[in-house]
Amino acid sequence: MQSRPTPARPTTRPTQPRPTHGGNLTWAASLAGCPPADILDFSASINPLGLPQSAVSAIQANLGALRDYPDPDYLTLRQALSQQHDLPIEWILPGNGAAELLTWAGRELAKLTATYLLTPSFSDYLRALSSFGAKIVRQPLKLDPSLAQPHLLIPAPPGSGLLLNNPHNPTGRLFSAKAVLPLLYQFALVVIDEAFMDFLPPAEQQSLIHLVPKYPNLVILRSLTKFYSLPGLRLGYAIAHPDRLNRWQTWRDPWSVNLLAAEAGVAVLQDRAFQQQTWDWLPPARQQLFEGLAQLPGLQPFPGSANFLLVQSQVAASALQQRLLCQDQILIRDCLSFPELGEAYFRVAVRRLSENQRLLEALADSLPHLPPRNA
Amino acid sequence: MQSRPTPARPTTRPTQPRPTHGGNLTWAASLAGCPPADILDFSASINPLGLPQSAVSAIQANLGALRDYPDPDYLTLRQALSQQHDLPIEWILPGNGAAELLTWAGRELAKLTATYLLTPSFSDYLRALSSFGAKIVRQPLKLDPSLAQPHLLIPAPPGSGLLLNNPHNPTGRLFSAKAVLPLLYQFALVVIDEAFMDFLPPAEQQSLIHLVPKYPNLVILRSLTKFYSLPGLRLGYAIAHPDRLNRWQTWRDPWSVNLLAAEAGVAVLQDRAFQQQTWDWLPPARQQLFEGLAQLPGLQPFPGSANFLLVQSQVAASALQQRLLCQDQILIRDCLSFPELGEAYFRVAVRRLSENQRLLEALADSLPHLPPRNA
Repeated sequence: MQSRPTPARPTTRPTQPRPTHGGNLTWAASLAGCPPADILDFSASINPLGLPQSAVSAIQANLGALRDYPDPDYLTLRQALSQQHDLPIEWILPGNGAAELLTWAGRELAKLTATYLLTPSFSDYLRALSSFGAKIVRQPLKLDPSLAQPHLLIPAPPGSGLLLNNPHNPTGRLFSAKAVLPLLYQFALVVIDEAFMDFLPPAEQQSLIHLVPKYPNLVILRSLTKFYSLPGLRLGYAIAHPDRLNRWQTWRDPWSVNLLAAEAGVAVLQDRAFQQQTWDWLPPARQQLFEGLAQLPGLQPFPGSANFLLVQSQVAASALQQRLLCQDQILIRDCLSFPELGEAYFRVAVRRLSENQRLLEALADSLPHLPPRNA
Repeated sequence: MQSRPTPARPTTRPTQPRPTHGGNLTWAASLAGCPPADILDFSASINPLGLPQSAVSAIQANLGALRDYPDPDYLTLRQALSQQHDLPIEWILPGNGAAELLTWAGRELAKLTATYLLTPSFSDYLRALSSFGAKIVRQPLKLDPSLAQPHLLIPAPPGSGLLLNNPHNPTGRLFSAKAVLPLLYQFALVVIDEAFMDFLPPAEQQSLIHLVPKYPNLVILRSLTKFYSLPGLRLGYAIAHPDRLNRWQTWRDPWSVNLLAAEAGVAVLQDRAFQQQTWDWLPPARQQLFEGLAQLPGLQPFPGSANFLLVQSQVAASALQQRLLCQDQILIRDCLSFPELGEAYFRVAVRRLSENQRLLEALADSLPHLPPRNA
């Protein structure tokens, strides 16, 4: 046995760079000088009504079961999702958050000649596509808050793929199912991330889930942790042709979803009361926030269908973010990780009426203290 | 919008094939005709003393935090592991179970000309290597229960990799660090799965973790869920050169480990009492089980260093498994998923003294009712 080597050791605590995703409360708390729990977080687009008691009860009831491996078939969870979407369970694959499934979607897309991406786009899309060397073609979305519905015409060469989110993040724009449908004929593979679709009341949703059995080139990704306020638990699912999902299953390990997430998922899917409360809360709360933002000088919110709003700002968003953190312990999402947006935009989650009001007042206080971006 | 297609629909509940891993209680319970919780599970090699109260308390204290994303840097968990192994945190990457990290290790190994694998081997190794098209070379381990220490001479062509577990699963054999060391000079990349190493008292462990800073071609995988009885929660970690771990981090999504697993991990790493209880329990319990098995006609256990024993059997293991399930609601691990073993072997976890005794009595009852394999 050789003696212990002495490698060059970096410091134990690395500096924390600016995060590229919302919801990084560890980072925010270190700037605000308060515990993470004291931050009022508008940066992560999570349902403020949760987490639902049904989820907490399911987790507590299953703590003893942590001694066992999760069921690798996730039968109970897939049956609950099967009922929800009226699809056989073979068309459903749960994942360790939609983000895990995005990795495997990225691997599929990387086989194609190119993948089209509406920009600005969720930064983890670039990660998942780059992970497997996909060729990425950026298709800029027209950034105009006054536009009622952005157009969705994408010139696609044969054999290419499309990765789209609907509603779109970070703009909050909703594409109609009718507008998306022609893309299924244009692209060899269409992956639609519907992570925020469940925030729309059922009658207004524009999901393409029901088309999956007809279009083997269609993959839908869904999250269960934004609507049900469980991002710490990690739970999402993919809906696609069984052959494709079986392939993904051989790519990853057999127990990707932890047992508490699987049990909580079953519980919240049956929680009609929580679902209805959310659908009752969101439209008026979003309206209040939109109108409040629109009235503030130098800010222009985009009309949005999800539980967040993108805002065009005449002051630098990172300076505004920093001031709100230090003065009010409020965290907004800067858009520096979206190269197309930069300092001119920020994103805010829609929260409860009183919390939205607190944000609007903090913004009204802070904006006069900050110079215009181009000053 | 097109009308709803009517695809051919398979039955909603698929038949459950024989599982390829231990611990599938859903499958076992359907055969035994009892609830999964009534099965006495010897098939999954999990510490029977757990789960530790420290883990339960950490989970309960953090249920409210599920509203937040996990810290993508997993600073607190990595700091706890850093202290445990006296390594800077940059050399440590937590994963969604060691199984997730095995996937990325498989991707690294697939770049090499070939990967050597001691067989029989944990079946998920084949999955992880095949996932990325690795060329697999099987190196048979001599299956002789009377051999004190199996030899570890592997003729390796330049540029090839090695995936080894130590202690070895399913034989339970421990390779000395001294025996493994020369392999670091032979192979371009050596991945050692030490999932069961922590079951050995510290003075007897043969880990190579302390050599990682000296050998950039060495990767160690560790599990936290076997020793701490948390397989449902999913938690493992890799120890390797920071460049390699940073690459893995770009391959996968940013929130791979759920927040409850990260918090429970920090708690159990500090739970010295549970660790000591485990090290006090295992050697005598394994000795009791080994001797009891050796006394049963037609069974020959292999000497093992981990918390399980491989047993050579003169009756067909699947028939024995079925009978134990139906008569005694006891689940043993058949070895049909190991092509080198088949019906001639089964594996059992070491459990508490009284549970081991129950298994030994059930075996003594069942064995006379089953014909020899070759009858």
